[in-house]
Amino acid sequence: MNSFILDPILRRALEEDIGTGDVTTQATIEPGTQASAELVAKEDFVLAGVDVAQRVFQLLSAETAFEKLMNDGQSVKRGDVLAWIKGDASVLLQGERVALNLLQRMCGVATLTAAFTKEVEGTQAIVVDTRKTTPGLRVLEKYSVRMGGGGNHRMALYDAVLIKENHVAAAGGITNAVSRAQQRVPHTQKIEVEVRNQEEVAEALAVGADILLLDNMSLDELSAAVELVGDRAITEASGGVNLESVRAIAEIGVRLISVGALTHSYRSVDISMLFT
Amino acid sequence: MNSFILDPILRRALEEDIGTGDVTTQATIEPGTQASAELVAKEDFVLAGVDVAQRVFQLLSAETAFEKLMNDGQSVKRGDVLAWIKGDASVLLQGERVALNLLQRMCGVATLTAAFTKEVEGTQAIVVDTRKTTPGLRVLEKYSVRMGGGGNHRMALYDAVLIKENHVAAAGGITNAVSRAQQRVPHTQKIEVEVRNQEEVAEALAVGADILLLDNMSLDELSAAVELVGDRAITEASGGVNLESVRAIAEIGVRLISVGALTHSYRSVDISMLFT
Amino acid sequence: MNSFILDPILRRALEEDIGTGDVTTQATIEPGTQASAELVAKEDFVLAGVDVAQRVFQLLSAETAFEKLMNDGQSVKRGDVLAWIKGDASVLLQGERVALNLLQRMCGVATLTAAFTKEVEGTQAIVVDTRKTTPGLRVLEKYSVRMGGGGNHRMALYDAVLIKENHVAAAGGITNAVSRAQQRVPHTQKIEVEVRNQEEVAEALAVGADILLLDNMSLDELSAAVELVGDRAITEASGGVNLESVRAIAEIGVRLISVGALTHSYRSVDISMLFT
Amino acid sequence: MNSFILDPILRRALEEDIGTGDVTTQATIEPGTQASAELVAKEDFVLAGVDVAQRVFQLLSAETAFEKLMNDGQSVKRGDVLAWIKGDASVLLQGERVALNLLQRMCGVATLTAAFTKEVEGTQAIVVDTRKTTPGLRVLEKYSVRMGGGGNHRMALYDAVLIKENHVAAAGGITNAVSRAQQRVPHTQKIEVEVRNQEEVAEALAVGADILLLDNMSLDELSAAVELVGDRAITEASGGVNLESVRAIAEIGVRLISVGALTHSYRSVDISMLFT
Amino acid sequence: MNSFILDPILRRALEEDIGTGDVTTQATIEPGTQASAELVAKEDFVLAGVDVAQRVFQLLSAETAFEKLMNDGQSVKRGDVLAWIKGDASVLLQGERVALNLLQRMCGVATLTAAFTKEVEGTQAIVVDTRKTTPGLRVLEKYSVRMGGGGNHRMALYDAVLIKENHVAAAGGITNAVSRAQQRVPHTQKIEVEVRNQEEVAEALAVGADILLLDNMSLDELSAAVELVGDRAITEASGGVNLESVRAIAEIGVRLISVGALTHSYRSVDISMLFT
Amino acid sequence: MNSFILDPILRRALEEDIGTGDVTTQATIEPGTQASAELVAKEDFVLAGVDVAQRVFQLLSAETAFEKLMNDGQSVKRGDVLAWIKGDASVLLQGERVALNLLQRMCGVATLTAAFTKEVEGTQAIVVDTRKTTPGLRVLEKYSVRMGGGGNHRMALYDAVLIKENHVAAAGGITNAVSRAQQRVPHTQKIEVEVRNQEEVAEALAVGADILLLDNMSLDELSAAVELVGDRAITEASGGVNLESVRAIAEIGVRLISVGALTHSYRSVDISMLFT
Repeated sequence: MNSFILDPILRRALEEDIGTGDVTTQATIEPGTQASAELVAKEDFVLAGVDVAQRVFQLLSAETAFEKLMNDGQSVKRGDVLAWIKGDASVLLQGERVALNLLQRMCGVATLTAAFTKEVEGTQAIVVDTRKTTPGLRVLEKYSVRMGGGGNHRMALYDAVLIKENHVAAAGGITNAVSRAQQRVPHTQKIEVEVRNQEEVAEALAVGADILLLDNMSLDELSAAVELVGDRAITEASGGVNLESVRAIAEIGVRLISVGALTHSYRSVDISMLFT
Repeated sequence: MNSFILDPILRRALEEDIGTGDVTTQATIEPGTQASAELVAKEDFVLAGVDVAQRVFQLLSAETAFEKLMNDGQSVKRGDVLAWIKGDASVLLQGERVALNLLQRMCGVATLTAAFTKEVEGTQAIVVDTRKTTPGLRVLEKYSVRMGGGGNHRMALYDAVLIKENHVAAAGGITNAVSRAQQRVPHTQKIEVEVRNQEEVAEALAVGADILLLDNMSLDELSAAVELVGDRAITEASGGVNLESVRAIAEIGVRLISVGALTHSYRSVDISMLFT
Repeated sequence: MNSFILDPILRRALEEDIGTGDVTTQATIEPGTQASAELVAKEDFVLAGVDVAQRVFQLLSAETAFEKLMNDGQSVKRGDVLAWIKGDASVLLQGERVALNLLQRMCGVATLTAAFTKEVEGTQAIVVDTRKTTPGLRVLEKYSVRMGGGGNHRMALYDAVLIKENHVAAAGGITNAVSRAQQRVPHTQKIEVEVRNQEEVAEALAVGADILLLDNMSLDELSAAVELVGDRAITEASGGVNLESVRAIAEIGVRLISVGALTHSYRSVDISMLFT
Repeated sequence: MNSFILDPILRRALEEDIGTGDVTTQATIEPGTQASAELVAKEDFVLAGVDVAQRVFQLLSAETAFEKLMNDGQSVKRGDVLAWIKGDASVLLQGERVALNLLQRMCGVATLTAAFTKEVEGTQAIVVDTRKTTPGLRVLEKYSVRMGGGGNHRMALYDAVLIKENHVAAAGGITNAVSRAQQRVPHTQKIEVEVRNQEEVAEALAVGADILLLDNMSLDELSAAVELVGDRAITEASGGVNLESVRAIAEIGVRLISVGALTHSYRSVDISMLFT
Repeated sequence: MNSFILDPILRRALEEDIGTGDVTTQATIEPGTQASAELVAKEDFVLAGVDVAQRVFQLLSAETAFEKLMNDGQSVKRGDVLAWIKGDASVLLQGERVALNLLQRMCGVATLTAAFTKEVEGTQAIVVDTRKTTPGLRVLEKYSVRMGGGGNHRMALYDAVLIKENHVAAAGGITNAVSRAQQRVPHTQKIEVEVRNQEEVAEALAVGADILLLDNMSLDELSAAVELVGDRAITEASGGVNLESVRAIAEIGVRLISVGALTHSYRSVDISMLFT
Repeated sequence: MNSFILDPILRRALEEDIGTGDVTTQATIEPGTQASAELVAKEDFVLAGVDVAQRVFQLLSAETAFEKLMNDGQSVKRGDVLAWIKGDASVLLQGERVALNLLQRMCGVATLTAAFTKEVEGTQAIVVDTRKTTPGLRVLEKYSVRMGGGGNHRMALYDAVLIKENHVAAAGGITNAVSRAQQRVPHTQKIEVEVRNQEEVAEALAVGADILLLDNMSLDELSAAVELVGDRAITEASGGVNLESVRAIAEIGVRLISVGALTHSYRSVDISMLFT
């Protein structure tokens, strides 16, 4: 991640937490006091965000030393030390919470993604994210999905066409909506359209949609749709997918399974920053 | 919430999701098309953030009508309609995801807080949040905690003194650390100090700390600490508190119970925006 | 264009030109003086940016009246009045230059695009823009291309895959580069690759590239490439295309012709703001 | 140019082009791959902006090496190498377009200015720019005018007094307008007033204007005006000046000739970044 | 003052004072409570900033009513009511301090300026400000100087040439420094140079400087300099001017007297916001 | 002070003063010219802000050398050299005014605070500041108060509860207002309430307010109030306190004396930057 993408996020987070100054540290720690600490895993998880944690401390002071012991994407075991940090005690104390708040969330996303990804192992399905991300942190959460072995769906409204039910209604049907998009959007973008039943699948195929979003279908409906599509389009299943249901969906043969929970309902993992 | 606090958060969220434009809506919806929609609860929860959702749509176009049918803090039942929205179809489609991403998270925090708060009913304990909030959204999450019936701990490093283990170590003991803070911080701020055992409780009381953070103590240790403190200081329990353990802690008689999970491990509630 | 996309561009332009204040207007115009003016075409051109001009004046004062007489995309004749403006004289005088600087450039882009588009009439080719836009004004220039009848290529590096010669070299060949992209980029994005000769065309087709950028080929090479590709991929010609050469290229049957000059070498059209 | 003036322009340009990330480079180039490239002139021109190009790459990574082989203001011949760049391949690929977009425009301005300047050689006239600059890039374009041998007119509305026809009308005549300005503007600023005929020239001289803008006059009118003024004021000719007409105007003896085309209708020069 | 100049200053001031929220008002005032108040002078002074105060409240809520009873530039007597304000009680309480902090300072500048201006009445001297303004508030302070009857010197480093002792030394003498400036700066700017004795006065006149800054001269030296200059240049006296010394300086016949104290050592006037 | 708190203030100050460039320095100083200078005290004062001055020059160029000879909080005598600066002449000339404008004001605050602090020596009273600070510079002025030996009151509206007369009126009395605050504000904050007579003192004590603001009381009233309070609350005197009256107030035994003048009516001290 380029610093000009990452830094504004981190600066805002630091301003939010430190503001006009850390009154406790200013009152209790003598200026110039040095300290060292380590980031320690308190449970098992998939790592994402260790570079982000490093950057937090270095934005506070370029002189903070940060030695990364594990890399994003690795499986971490309880007790593993992720990194060593050394520098001004007040910098370590002021950066601690922001670094952990980000790192614990990013690992949470990666870990949940890895659980889904493991479920679909051996199928051709890829588990992908959605736009149901935390406002302000999308780029970090989508990165974490990749670290957990998942794929990314579109980044945002600006970089792909996804014609949903409401667009279809307003445009007067799937054929109209897809045709307009084919004429108006850049040739670099595929056109995805949401379909709810076999008639809509057929209509979308006829007009030449590139990707079909099979939304909230039963397993039987999904099977029928996948069979009807064949290799004429890419298929994506979505709608209330969870760890229990994902494998059955994958085995039907859909290419993509999009899961909102990856970024809207993960749990922060437990990581401590221990002063040594 | 004043708009000058809220608007920058919302603008960044909209920029993140819309960027240079919603290519799907531009390609499929004729300019000027009007639409109306309602925000509908798909499960039971405690409401927080309905004004935030309203502001999202009005930042996109001041002409969007938004009628609020329920208020923050209310208990919502599955099927309840939270608000009606009417305006330019492209505004409704472009604001939908950002509004829901925020509203669903804020309700998630309020709902989890309400669950904790219900557990401690009848005791004198107040469930409060921590600084383990989502970077960039702290002010919204702390507001949601209040809507769920919880209390707020300090907002950030700048508005209260909380002397933790590492500050104590660097300052050379509890007495030194608290004394320094008493001399250096504004008279408007109480001084809280983390204590881990009865000796530390006694030392903190002797030097006149206003609040004692009883961190990661067993129920027996907590009981002994609360008894020793009496009304000489405010007591706060923290450390791995969950819905199963919170009532037993509350019954010991601590005044505050701080719970990181309120803001770091909530689940987004399910809300739909249905076009009508 | 949503105001949250447009307004920062306009605010910066106004700050650049007005800064701490228009000393001439402050010194010579009595506060409260009203004025009216019209935007008049001093030559023939294709209109783009009239809403942008309106927004400039309304950012200076919400009370400025602006009546649009012609719409973006229309052909304008010398002498046509584009809009009437009425309001505080100091607002009209302070906004004049920024409004014209933007409007004249946007019309310049639309007009040059329309000239190219006219040349390819009757063929299946679409003239599209590139990333060779004016830094800071890309969204306005790409909009103007559409108003001139052209199409948009990718917006930026983030919203499409275009594998150029240097990426191919670094990845060890077209097959490697395209394969990696197929595995790593979201399924919503097509994959375009630059090819320089028939061998590369064949390699790109074999690995399944969606779009072939036929860069700097002679008419003969282009013909051979287009024939080889058939309907297995989308073809795009680029490299030094001008008004003299574009039709011959279009008649070969390429689907897209990208022209950097649309946004890097247009001439501002002549528009006056006449006070009445 | 101080970095605090230049950097915000460059950061915005990089954000516009890279946004959430260069998907092509991320997909095809292995992290850590090194590359080197050179900036090569593909035609003859006057150089302006080589430091700006350097800063673009160094904002992306402070570790990028950039060796400048030619300096701003120099005449460049086709084939000349302007600079060598060495560093992370992804940095070079991500910075390429922004660096070229700026450099090619700046050289375009310098080159067109040099053409005008050459025409007036041997006269006492100086060719100067106007406020008809590209919104957001004025400081770069005005710098480029100087590199092409031209002079700068006022930077903006805030740093000089230029009383135009509309100010004159609103103030009730040249005498009123100039008198007011003499009383109200700082003593550090000269007062320039637009005049359209000999009567206005005489009136402006009588009231003591420092500079006379002789707008859209024929050569005969210009001659008469210049003679009437003598050394009582500075004379500036403006209005539709082009490379064919500029010398005749200069030979009349005006001190300044302002040319909007320098910044509103230049052509980007052709420069390539070749990877080596 | 245009809102796009004023608003960023006011927004930063409000953010500085309100931040995440006014805890006192939130805790004690019921939402929706209305209130009215008046701004009352507690001493005599010259008014400046009443529109600024109005804008503060309206930025917090566009619905706040603010009736201005007196105008900037007027002499205010103790007990005068400057304005009535009516609106949401929480808006009035949150805006009060920021509005007063700005208004009291602006009136302080205007009042001190008026005192200096009164001293030089009947002479041809104008009292002007300097760049010794409060960082971030220059545009407001320079406006207040005008409201107090003073004049403005240059706004900043960018809008005028003032060659000081250190520039002279670096350029190798007054003649060199002024000549270079005459060749390099826009024709719209006069050239001012600091001189310390009669030889320097003579040198500056010889090279054609427009304005002479007579710095820290005794009354005798000033007299000699003014006589030597005659009407060949504008004269400005500066250096430790105070209310006791200013008249004697003015009577010598200098055109301008610049006084740093106007903006660096004024006293805030006493104004109360009384709730009614 | 962390750079992410300080730098935005300094960048805005530099932009305000330098904007598009220092025309004098550009015109008279050859690029690359080196210079050195020293910051010299022209009167006696208490130092505050020397690190701020250093940062100003280093933001303009990281290569500027700045050797600090004295530290914040020290007493400075006329003629003392505060620091040596060495670097690019244009950097020194461009940073000079901003650095001095800030340093002279900060020293002004520290010096006035030290005068007040000296008056109360030997009593238990602490002189503290208020929110009557210069908009945009509060964090610097509050720091300067500490350097002058004073204490800080609350930073802003967000970090402490201070219930004033208007809150009391709106809440329906002191008891109501304080009770609400006790229920609603975080347990980390003390509650301060303004009282105007002995009845209000008694009511505030009864409801358990932590701090009593004794506003505008006579010495006799203050004495009575302090006696009544005893050690049941912290006492703070405020209202028109000056150097003549402060000792008598302090001797009554109040714990805090808040003085608006510390930050609203100080005088900038005299410091020169001498080029050597």
